[in-house]
Amino acid sequence: MKKKSIKIAMVGLGTVGSGVWKILSQQRQLLEQRIGAPIEIKWVAVRSLRKKRNFALPKSCLITQTDLIFNDPEVQIVAELMGGVSEAKKIVLKALKKGKHVVTANKALIAECGSELFHAARQAKRDLCFEASVGGGIPVLRALREGLAGNHLHSIYGIINGTCNFILTEMLHKQMDFHQALKKAQELGFAEADPSFDIQGVDAAQKLAILIAMAYGVEIPANKIHTEGIEPISLLDMQNAQRFGYQIKLLAIAKSVRGQVQARVQPTMIAQDSMLAAVQGENNAVLFDGDFVGQTLLYGKGAGSEPTASAVVGDIVEIARNIQVGVSEAVAPLGVSVESLKAAKIQPIDLLKSEYYLRFQVIDRPGVLAKITQILSQYKISISSVYQHGHQSGEEVSVVVLTHEVLEKNLQQAINKINRLSFVRAATTIIRVEA
Amino acid sequence: MKKKSIKIAMVGLGTVGSGVWKILSQQRQLLEQRIGAPIEIKWVAVRSLRKKRNFALPKSCLITQTDLIFNDPEVQIVAELMGGVSEAKKIVLKALKKGKHVVTANKALIAECGSELFHAARQAKRDLCFEASVGGGIPVLRALREGLAGNHLHSIYGIINGTCNFILTEMLHKQMDFHQALKKAQELGFAEADPSFDIQGVDAAQKLAILIAMAYGVEIPANKIHTEGIEPISLLDMQNAQRFGYQIKLLAIAKSVRGQVQARVQPTMIAQDSMLAAVQGENNAVLFDGDFVGQTLLYGKGAGSEPTASAVVGDIVEIARNIQVGVSEAVAPLGVSVESLKAAKIQPIDLLKSEYYLRFQVIDRPGVLAKITQILSQYKISISSVYQHGHQSGEEVSVVVLTHEVLEKNLQQAINKINRLSFVRAATTIIRVEA
Repeated sequence: MKKKSIKIAMVGLGTVGSGVWKILSQQRQLLEQRIGAPIEIKWVAVRSLRKKRNFALPKSCLITQTDLIFNDPEVQIVAELMGGVSEAKKIVLKALKKGKHVVTANKALIAECGSELFHAARQAKRDLCFEASVGGGIPVLRALREGLAGNHLHSIYGIINGTCNFILTEMLHKQMDFHQALKKAQELGFAEADPSFDIQGVDAAQKLAILIAMAYGVEIPANKIHTEGIEPISLLDMQNAQRFGYQIKLLAIAKSVRGQVQARVQPTMIAQDSMLAAVQGENNAVLFDGDFVGQTLLYGKGAGSEPTASAVVGDIVEIARNIQVGVSEAVAPLGVSVESLKAAKIQPIDLLKSEYYLRFQVIDRPGVLAKITQILSQYKISISSVYQHGHQSGEEVSVVVLTHEVLEKNLQQAINKINRLSFVRAATTIIRVEA
Repeated sequence: MKKKSIKIAMVGLGTVGSGVWKILSQQRQLLEQRIGAPIEIKWVAVRSLRKKRNFALPKSCLITQTDLIFNDPEVQIVAELMGGVSEAKKIVLKALKKGKHVVTANKALIAECGSELFHAARQAKRDLCFEASVGGGIPVLRALREGLAGNHLHSIYGIINGTCNFILTEMLHKQMDFHQALKKAQELGFAEADPSFDIQGVDAAQKLAILIAMAYGVEIPANKIHTEGIEPISLLDMQNAQRFGYQIKLLAIAKSVRGQVQARVQPTMIAQDSMLAAVQGENNAVLFDGDFVGQTLLYGKGAGSEPTASAVVGDIVEIARNIQVGVSEAVAPLGVSVESLKAAKIQPIDLLKSEYYLRFQVIDRPGVLAKITQILSQYKISISSVYQHGHQSGEEVSVVVLTHEVLEKNLQQAINKINRLSFVRAATTIIRVEA
């Protein structure tokens, strides 16, 4: 007896959409074995029917009107793969309202409108899955929501922007400066023509907001996350980091600090021999520190058509398996009931305590180091190492200072004061060190 | 309104059991939030009521008779945490028969009796979860069964025995020989008094059997897996590996090769800058290579009371969430229906193609290298590098050869022949290289 197929509709057939199409058609047999019923793509909504595509697709399933999907009672799962926020939001809300389960790969959508969508899913008693929104193909959210469900998380460290990690890796390995490495990333397709969304840390902040929501069952707007990009990082800083046994990575960091959440995206120095430092090129990784499980890391491809599609298909399989046993909402989108969501209490960045790497660009003349260290000590900043690169009296040199743990507020005040000194030639570079 | 609690019974209160008790009692509130109902431990079956335990436990729940559990209709989940095979198997089968869902951390049980237990679960229409059996706290099996469900796996590489990885890491970092490192592992509690189960690779083979069963939907007896331990690895080999840009790890390897499964546990040389090489000490990691997701790695603590208990509790949460929505068997134990399980077609080890590291212990005299290379070429073994350590005519030296890809069968024949040469002083060390 042939089993009844589970019918899905896709909205969007770009990078991720074409990957999903490819997996669902090539792995038909494998998926049927794993779900217990075949998956059938009934509709694929696209902007234009005329666009040339480099893979075969039956014309009969291509449509431009999404209403056909919503009004088709056979469609059980809608995969939103169009990107953008406002149109995508309408599609997801309408699909839920019409009784469809929804899978999306859209991080901006979940980060900006998650709470509203989760409530809509709850009301419709339908599943809303978004594994692909963080870490591409890596099953990061599922691990957090399920495998680590017995843990309270002390911290999350994520390398969740492949563009930035590619650029930093290139800088280090090829001894390039930032702009050379960015250019290479653009040539290879790892960075957009306008890379600002990635290199300024905005993309990582959106993904961090999703991780925090799931880890702590709170709502946190991505724009409330303290975010710094990688543009200020120079090759000299990368080399200095190495000298002290560190590597610089753009980290998305969340910590649980006495009932508050510390949330920030910053270039960060981490130990050379740590697992995160081993994450090279465009790869992503997330390190969870749970109170019972300890440090657990997930690593893999954080972007690209096929890895991202793999995560979307993982979600489709989950929902399809649930459809097979006649159940929905076995696990809430964030792993806790949407009614219990609260606004996150975010720790003000001023209250951050960290070790710091400071690079001062100064004119090399007697008394310079004395003046700098005097101001640092005035703000209770204690020094663990000093390193001066080059010694040519009267010329510009860089003085590098590593501090013990200090309060961000004190540090900023001290640096402001130092930056105004006459012998300081450029704004001091500040990089946090996670020891 | 107070929600009805989900009642569980534990069998065993040793290392893992006490960890599970700790998590379930300390994370009561967190778990209730994540499940939607409180978890209550109703019974804990132990061997002796008199044993002293270093944590508080209400005496009323301690029992020695497991029948109390089976006959208690309130108990919905049984956690088998006693270890061993024959008794544990009876417990699991009886629990399933009595309509309980089962969670176990018992790798030997699943590896040896998995198929029988999965059939029993199917018949009873109950869930059987065993995340903790591979990789301790790392949600490896869940990732494979769910997140990566859209992929066919080209390969699996696992560092899944913490004892061996600890010993190899110590040898490399402290320049110890195997026996010194083993002694240290025993002192620190990372190795048993009788370490043979771990260092001979048997433990890793059992875990690999579980990974293969889940990845490929096949039955594979652990004792059919070609298994080599780490005892033959000398400090000299570790140093030589480093010289060529490699590190030696005990890897559990599965590959899909034209409809067959290649399955083996062996000390293996891997690239120094790979993610697996970054796995230090007693930590575990599994690297999946899926046809769409690409390389995906999960890393963390592979043993120990609390990490293992974290995985057990993850399984309990999964089952409890399903109980809340009134469903079981949403996902089959292996992710595919038990009826579709077939015996694995295992590739004979003779047909393995690999690059090799060979260390010959020979008397240094003219013509030795010529004779060795002549025999190698006779068996179509082509050499990529040669390195000779020390040159003292008439004394024993080691000659290291790295080969290009060759057939295992040819290699074994060549080495057998070489080992019989008069100037060869010890059996040649053979280590596979995964490039």
